[in-house]
Amino acid sequence: MNRTSADQHVDPPSSEARRNAEQRLALLATPAGALGRLGELAVWVAATQGRVPPEPVERVRAVIFAGDHGVTAHHSVSAYPREITGAMVHAFLLGKAGVCVLAAQHGVTVRVLDIAVDADLDVPPEVTAFKVRRGSGRIDVEDALTLEETRRAIAAGEQIAAEEVAAGAQLLISGDMGIGNTTPATALVAASLGMSAAEITGRGTGIDDSTFEHKVAVIQRALDRAGDRVGDPVQTLAALGSADIAASAGFMAASARAGVPVLLDGVISVAAALMADRLAPGAAAWFAAGHRSTEPALSVAVDKLGLTPVLDLQLRLGEGSGAVAAVPLVRSAALLLRDVALLTDLMPNG
Amino acid sequence: MNRTSADQHVDPPSSEARRNAEQRLALLATPAGALGRLGELAVWVAATQGRVPPEPVERVRAVIFAGDHGVTAHHSVSAYPREITGAMVHAFLLGKAGVCVLAAQHGVTVRVLDIAVDADLDVPPEVTAFKVRRGSGRIDVEDALTLEETRRAIAAGEQIAAEEVAAGAQLLISGDMGIGNTTPATALVAASLGMSAAEITGRGTGIDDSTFEHKVAVIQRALDRAGDRVGDPVQTLAALGSADIAASAGFMAASARAGVPVLLDGVISVAAALMADRLAPGAAAWFAAGHRSTEPALSVAVDKLGLTPVLDLQLRLGEGSGAVAAVPLVRSAALLLRDVALLTDLMPNG
Repeated sequence: MNRTSADQHVDPPSSEARRNAEQRLALLATPAGALGRLGELAVWVAATQGRVPPEPVERVRAVIFAGDHGVTAHHSVSAYPREITGAMVHAFLLGKAGVCVLAAQHGVTVRVLDIAVDADLDVPPEVTAFKVRRGSGRIDVEDALTLEETRRAIAAGEQIAAEEVAAGAQLLISGDMGIGNTTPATALVAASLGMSAAEITGRGTGIDDSTFEHKVAVIQRALDRAGDRVGDPVQTLAALGSADIAASAGFMAASARAGVPVLLDGVISVAAALMADRLAPGAAAWFAAGHRSTEPALSVAVDKLGLTPVLDLQLRLGEGSGAVAAVPLVRSAALLLRDVALLTDLMPNG
Repeated sequence: MNRTSADQHVDPPSSEARRNAEQRLALLATPAGALGRLGELAVWVAATQGRVPPEPVERVRAVIFAGDHGVTAHHSVSAYPREITGAMVHAFLLGKAGVCVLAAQHGVTVRVLDIAVDADLDVPPEVTAFKVRRGSGRIDVEDALTLEETRRAIAAGEQIAAEEVAAGAQLLISGDMGIGNTTPATALVAASLGMSAAEITGRGTGIDDSTFEHKVAVIQRALDRAGDRVGDPVQTLAALGSADIAASAGFMAASARAGVPVLLDGVISVAAALMADRLAPGAAAWFAAGHRSTEPALSVAVDKLGLTPVLDLQLRLGEGSGAVAAVPLVRSAALLLRDVALLTDLMPNG
């Protein structure tokens, strides 16, 4: 299953399965194109599995990467105090967070990991097993991480993906929890696409005008500070990212290398996906976008990745919730291509 | 449960439950508005149930109203021969149609009824128990139905709804099957909104330019022929509709009167909903829109009904498939409002 070549390029999903899936789609007892986006998703699922018709997508596993961000310590870029991050880790463990409710509905496993929460949480040891540091750096004045920490976070994500793949995942989801995390995510998208902060900064979760303008300024200062380093993905993550986003990027890159597709969530997840595709060029072919949030950086990033989100419900909860909400539609896509009658079955003389 | 007053007006869902649901939504351990459309749907579900938090939406039942349309006999308004309608009824009974695959995934019951298929189908007697006639009239030159047939079709829909409600439905779906059915549906929407055929005619399932122009002309001739009768909903259904759409309208009106919400599908379903809201003013408050299809008449009709579709997947399969695909999201909405922690539970001292 190791699809990595020496230059880290990732082999694409099966083009033969894609062609066969497109042919089967055209032979279903439905009008041409009537399945719309579900038809496209079905073809993608079949290509990632290398199998037509595709198998039902039963084993879906979500990992939540939690971390705090230095920009919340001295600057108001969020409407919420960062103590919320730790409180939410507890909510995940209790199964009472939004994504847990959706995951229980859809039979998706949820694993929460404290990658860089700025607290010593009283949680089971497996939750902190991959912790890189307490909080990531304040990106407008300092790097988020050292290069060594960045590599360690990426490697943690790779190991976590390997564990989830070994547990039988047919589809993986990377969620996030961290007050202020839209700031580094937006900086990563801007840096990767050569855009300014003003062009793609969004309002995160419910901030006012002056906080918004402040957030734009923080992101632009971070971009200016990073300078030419944005040409390299590891240096970009070190300068502008965070340990939790670097881990998520490593997780997605390793999933793609292992041939397991990933359903993306909101702007944090999509920023990590963009970095994963830079770390492992071609990885994006293994990704589908679960939902379109209200963050402008998400829209430009999914366009760059060539993806169209399944849902558009103005969700901005994070936690992987938009991806988990989209799981039944990915399952529907595979089931339709598998179980709908062929026209020749219905009208054998037609 | 009979909410009909003498003038046929339908009482709205509980405004007290709506207020309580909005309050609970604001107290969840999520940022304000972070649940987006799912938050709005949750409030609607709670209001229709008169219960906060809402019960899980487990028992969902779909009814497919099948029928042929005279416009397909002498005119090319569809890319498909009408023999397909009967073949698809058999596919529903075999569980091999698109909506059946989705319904099996989501535990939704599917009941298919031949209301006006232009054939004597070899099917179990319960499938034809409510049959009104073989095909409906060619609306550009004659009425679709007599007034007596129209009333019989509406009454059939009302009785079918009563049976589904008695079977325990918490949410109902009205699907449709019938080659050419976007033509009467579009005529009904145009007549109800005072629009011309050119303004809202869509391409149905895969027709070319000349067929499209012909379809616009057929619909406009039908509208011209109906004249002032479009002021009355029963006469509108008789002049421009069909037995299957009239039955669907009766089904939805009776569901609303019984206090059971309805999840709408594509343009046929939305046209029937518009007629249901004219037959039983206020019924639309019991409806949610499952998906946005590619038909322009759907978009203007849902706007008129004050609804925002849950999904936008460019589906144009009909059969209730878009509504059934949206069922897990309605369920998610109710579960989130019910099971996500309140902020006070997480931070009791906050």
